[in-house]
Amino acid sequence: MKFCSQCGSPVEQRIPEGDNRQRFVCPQCTTIHYQNPRVIAGCLPVWGEQVLLCRRAIEPRRGYWTLPAGFMENGETLAEAAARETDEEACARVRDLALYTLFDLPHISQLYVFFRAELVDLDFAAGEESLEVKLFHEHEIPWNELAFPTAGRTLQCYFADRREQLYPIRNEGLAALRPRG
Amino acid sequence: MKFCSQCGSPVEQRIPEGDNRQRFVCPQCTTIHYQNPRVIAGCLPVWGEQVLLCRRAIEPRRGYWTLPAGFMENGETLAEAAARETDEEACARVRDLALYTLFDLPHISQLYVFFRAELVDLDFAAGEESLEVKLFHEHEIPWNELAFPTAGRTLQCYFADRREQLYPIRNEGLAALRPRG
Repeated sequence: MKFCSQCGSPVEQRIPEGDNRQRFVCPQCTTIHYQNPRVIAGCLPVWGEQVLLCRRAIEPRRGYWTLPAGFMENGETLAEAAARETDEEACARVRDLALYTLFDLPHISQLYVFFRAELVDLDFAAGEESLEVKLFHEHEIPWNELAFPTAGRTLQCYFADRREQLYPIRNEGLAALRPRG
Repeated sequence: MKFCSQCGSPVEQRIPEGDNRQRFVCPQCTTIHYQNPRVIAGCLPVWGEQVLLCRRAIEPRRGYWTLPAGFMENGETLAEAAARETDEEACARVRDLALYTLFDLPHISQLYVFFRAELVDLDFAAGEESLEVKLFHEHEIPWNELAFPTAGRTLQCYFADRREQLYPIRNEGLAALRPRG
């Protein structure tokens, strides 16, 4: 940030009175420009024994597989954002969304949230940001071709939880996302 | 938003190519300025049978009681944000944070998240944004003097769940926050 979005003057970085963090502040109109983490919401769409993955048509990680997910927009609920992203990326409709995984990614100031969801029908297709959309059985998951550890960890939890038929909601950090030895 | 924070030119509102929403776009440097929901994180600090509430020293809702909570900052995890806010508003340290309630507030583009947490000790005090910080038994909760329905609903869930000794994580929307007839 270089200029004030309210008045167009150059901003400066300083700690405002009563605060304890550096902020972008406008010396002209005194607006404080706060910057906050962004939320990414997505679905783990399930069809019987299979789950739906999308192969990314865009960077980062073009060509790799992932779960449909994207930035939550103003005016949405978490579940609405997750369902919209599933529609946009996989042209798929989902129901019975159940909160499942929340990953803290403080190094990039993101909060990643996945819902388990039931696919409504098999009428899905690659959206504009996907090369391909496909159902996978557990043994078919392309573990080495997944785009993001958040999707991989969600799938890993899901298949483990499915054996127990218990799906605890998880709030995990980076440690859970690091590949094990 | 009136000016581009990258180059200082006046922005315009339009739907960028490949998008389906109005965004602030800079016609000069082509930067698209996305605006996304903000996350508020807080704690329900517990000491035995009692819970800790803060009486707000600032607007909105100055003089009303609430749970310590505030905007999540870049570089934090959800739980870190909740613990920091508890320290700032109640000068209190908490441990064993457990994700508890997530409220979607799409009309103000906020996501509100509370953790249950254990107070480490009784060494708490009013922070700069609080007039008073106090422990309450269930029958002492000032239900009609609570600042925000998110705090009220979290307390309501907590006392109900405590009877069952089961604390399911809840993702609720506005309906849960409306007062019942």
